[in-house]
This record gives sequence, C-alpha cells and structure tokens, in this order.
Amino acid sequence: MTGPAKPLKRLAWRDGAMQEGTRIVAEEVPVAIVHDGATYAVMMASPADLEDFAIGFSLTEGVIDDRTEVEELELVETELGWVARMWLSKRSRSVLSARRRRLTGPAGCGLCGVESLTEAVRPARPVGPGRPLTPLALARGFDAMQTAQTLGRLTRAVHAAAFLAPDGTLTVREDVGRHNALDKLIGALARQGRNACDGAILMTSRVSVELVQKAAMAGAPILAAVSAPSTLAVTLADGAGMTLVAVARADGFELFTHPHRISTKAEEQPRVA
Amino acid sequence: MTGPAKPLKRLAWRDGAMQEGTRIVAEEVPVAIVHDGATYAVMMASPADLEDFAIGFSLTEGVIDDRTEVEELELVETELGWVARMWLSKRSRSVLSARRRRLTGPAGCGLCGVESLTEAVRPARPVGPGRPLTPLALARGFDAMQTAQTLGRLTRAVHAAAFLAPDGTLTVREDVGRHNALDKLIGALARQGRNACDGAILMTSRVSVELVQKAAMAGAPILAAVSAPSTLAVTLADGAGMTLVAVARADGFELFTHPHRISTKAEEQPRVA
Repeated sequence: MTGPAKPLKRLAWRDGAMQEGTRIVAEEVPVAIVHDGATYAVMMASPADLEDFAIGFSLTEGVIDDRTEVEELELVETELGWVARMWLSKRSRSVLSARRRRLTGPAGCGLCGVESLTEAVRPARPVGPGRPLTPLALARGFDAMQTAQTLGRLTRAVHAAAFLAPDGTLTVREDVGRHNALDKLIGALARQGRNACDGAILMTSRVSVELVQKAAMAGAPILAAVSAPSTLAVTLADGAGMTLVAVARADGFELFTHPHRISTKAEEQPRVA
Repeated sequence: MTGPAKPLKRLAWRDGAMQEGTRIVAEEVPVAIVHDGATYAVMMASPADLEDFAIGFSLTEGVIDDRTEVEELELVETELGWVARMWLSKRSRSVLSARRRRLTGPAGCGLCGVESLTEAVRPARPVGPGRPLTPLALARGFDAMQTAQTLGRLTRAVHAAAFLAPDGTLTVREDVGRHNALDKLIGALARQGRNACDGAILMTSRVSVELVQKAAMAGAPILAAVSAPSTLAVTLADGAGMTLVAVARADGFELFTHPHRISTKAEEQPRVA
C-alpha cells in the first residue's frame, strides 16, 4: 500500500533567500466505495486504514446497520487510487436499492430543492445516557490523542478522530479529511465489535453538521473537539441529546449542549497523581 | 438573510470552574444548487454571498463555461436552508443532460469503481503564463486577506479565499468550508466580468486536490495557501502548469511547482516604503 505520506522536493523562501529542501507531504488518493458492484461515492482520503474507512463510511451513511452486513470486503489498488469493493447481505442490498430509486427519482419538479434540503439536514440519531466524564479525563484524552497522531506530526496536515473509552484507553485514526478520520474511527470500533455508546469521540477539528450526524450514527453520547462548532451542528447535537464540547484547549473547554455528562464536582474528579 | 454568524449561549470551563457566557458561532446552512428545476447538489455553507456561490460552483463543476450561461438566478430561503435556482442557456442545458445520463448510467459493472476514479482525478485544466509575483507582494496579499476576514475574526471558525490582482487589490470571500470559499470567490470574479488569469488565488487552508482543480477551472496561474498541500494536489498543479505556493507564513513560504512565476531577483522587488 502507498504510505500515507511521502517526502517531496520543494523550494523554501526564508529570510530573503531561496533554499532547496524537502517536506513530508500527506498523501491524498481517491477511494471508490463500491457496494455490490455499484459505486456509492468516491472520497479523497489518506491511504491508510481503508478497511476501517469502508466499513465506517457504510455505517455512517446508513447503508449497513451492523458490520456483519458486509459479507465480503476487498481492497484493490489501481494506478489512480483505491477501490473498496463490498458485497452486502440481502437486507442491506434492498435498503440500498430503495435509496438508489429515490435518489434518481423524478427530476425537475418545482419542489426538488426543498426536498433535497430535508434529506441533507435529517435529524441526528438520538444517543443513549452514556457515562459522566471529568474535565481531567477529557484533558488526558486530548493529550494522549496528540501523542498518537503519528501522521499529523510528520505532515502537520491531517486530522485525527479518537474514541476515549471509560477506562481511559484511546483508539485513534488519522486522515487528510476530518470526516474520513471519523468514519475510519467508527469503522475501527465496529470491526473490533465495539461501539461508542459509553465513551467520548474526540476530534482535532471544527464541528460540522456532518460530524455530529456521524458521531450520532455511532451512538457517541459525547463529542469533543479542539475547535468551534457551527450553529446547525449545535442544533443537531442538542436534538440528539448529545453533549457537545468544543474549543477544547490546554486552559479549558466550552460546553454547547447537554452539559450534565461533564462531571465537574470535586469529589468525582480523579486525583492527580 | 440569516447572518453568517450568531451568538450562542454556552458554558466555559476555565481554571477549574464553570462559567456562563456566549460565543459567536458561524452559521452553517444547507444550500441546494438547482439547475433547470433539478438538484445538482446540496452543500453545507455559510449563508453569505450565495449568488457568488451559485455561479462559482456552477463554473467549477463545469456545468457552465461562462457566467452568462445562467440566464436567471433566484435565491429562496426556506425553514431548512437556501435554494439557489438557476435557469440555464440551451448550451449548458444539453451539457448537463449528457452528464446526468452518464452519472446514472449502467450500475454494477465490474469496472465501475475504476471508472469513478478516472472521473474523480480528472487532470486540472492547464493555466496560462500569468504574471510574476514578488515575495513582498505575496506577503502583503496575505496581510490584507487577514485584515479582510470579518467573519473569521468574529468566529475563528471559517476559511477565506482571496484573489490578488496585479495592482495589489484584493477580493475576499469567506465560508465554513474552504472549497465553498473558493467557489464564492470564483463566482464573485465572474459576476464582475473578471477572471483569475493575471493574478494569484490565496487560501487560508491546506491545499486539496479539489482546490487545485477549482483554481485551474478559474484559470489562476498561482495558488498560494497558508498550510500544506497533499501529494496529489502537487501532482495536479504540476500537470496544469500552476505555481503552487504553500506553508505561507510570516517568515516565508514554500514552492512546490513551477517556481518561475515567483520573482525573487532583488531588482524586481518593489521597494519597501
């Protein structure tokens, strides 16, 4: 497999002089997601953890409800990029056919723009109660995520998504795209037979509508990000009962929705060693 | 029109205590792009400069070749978001119909993944000679862009795309999405009857494949960004004859392709006032 980064020659202009040198640059390759022989989408992604990506993307798009519904997964590298070929169980196959019929439905009706909007802002799936999380556990999670960002350190040009489990362990995936990083993480958990219902998803990015929708599909009761959310991301997280933490920095964080899962009472805080 | 940002109440955890307060948050709304009564795509975008967005997106997607091919443009706000309805000239209408037939073509063939890859990484359109640009002019362009980022200063959560003309003037557009910001910029230039052939496009973001493809569609001979490119973005810029400047910071910048347009000879540098 092509590595997710490679050195490229470039010139650098510093202090009024041009210097030769190299920079480690993140790879970005097209990945065709193919279900039962038909392309669902082509995504530009980092060529790493593509099995996780194929499964995670199929889950967050609602093509499958469970990892086992992909009966076969084959990754094929071509000169132009990767093809992730999946063969689905009978149930998913009929879900997909119904969706395809809908998407290619009558074009040209006066309402089509409005109908497409309804499709685009479908409410995020409601999340379960989850477990309380302390500010200290959250800060430790973000610290551990930073340490685990191997590709990020090399290239300073990729995002990471991490799952913080109740025991403090972390699962991390990286990608040139923040949405892909989350899909890879969700796929990785699914392939390990785990779900996100009792922990928190951490992101290095801003919080878009799509990230909330994906995290909700994975059942994550807490979504925490280094940067700010959009207004609609806040509205969707609120509607799904999800705790949205953002602007998480060394000096603290901000809480936009359902703050009850962040437990700030002193007696609930683990003692600092 | 809904403003592109609004204040939201949130809690802030700082120095071990929870405080109430507000943050100005960037709006993100779905915008349905509708050509001749059929939805082409729904994009999540900042609700500002949507006329520019509709025209720019139609240009960079190749639906139209020229701004005048949109005979009518109507923006409709609904409860769920915006609909940008365009009515096209006869020529564009037939281009679009041909593309729709291709996209909904025979599904399920063994080659479909590979064919979709070919579609996704189509080479960027070759750019013209352009004009040389000095490091000083580039640095002044980035400074001016920062000053012009009104929404960025309010929210610290949106990207900007700017066109630096040979006379040093700047046209800037902002959006929650970097690709949208560039589409808005390209649409704004087109609506002013201008093109990008004699200047440089500046971006606040990393450089993806899609940004190179869009900049090339607009004819920009120089694309300069604050952060790093991906490998495939470099390959595409190289193929298009485009000068790709990246990691543009206060202390300098890096040059990945076609460096001849950056003129570093002392005699060509404008004198500092």
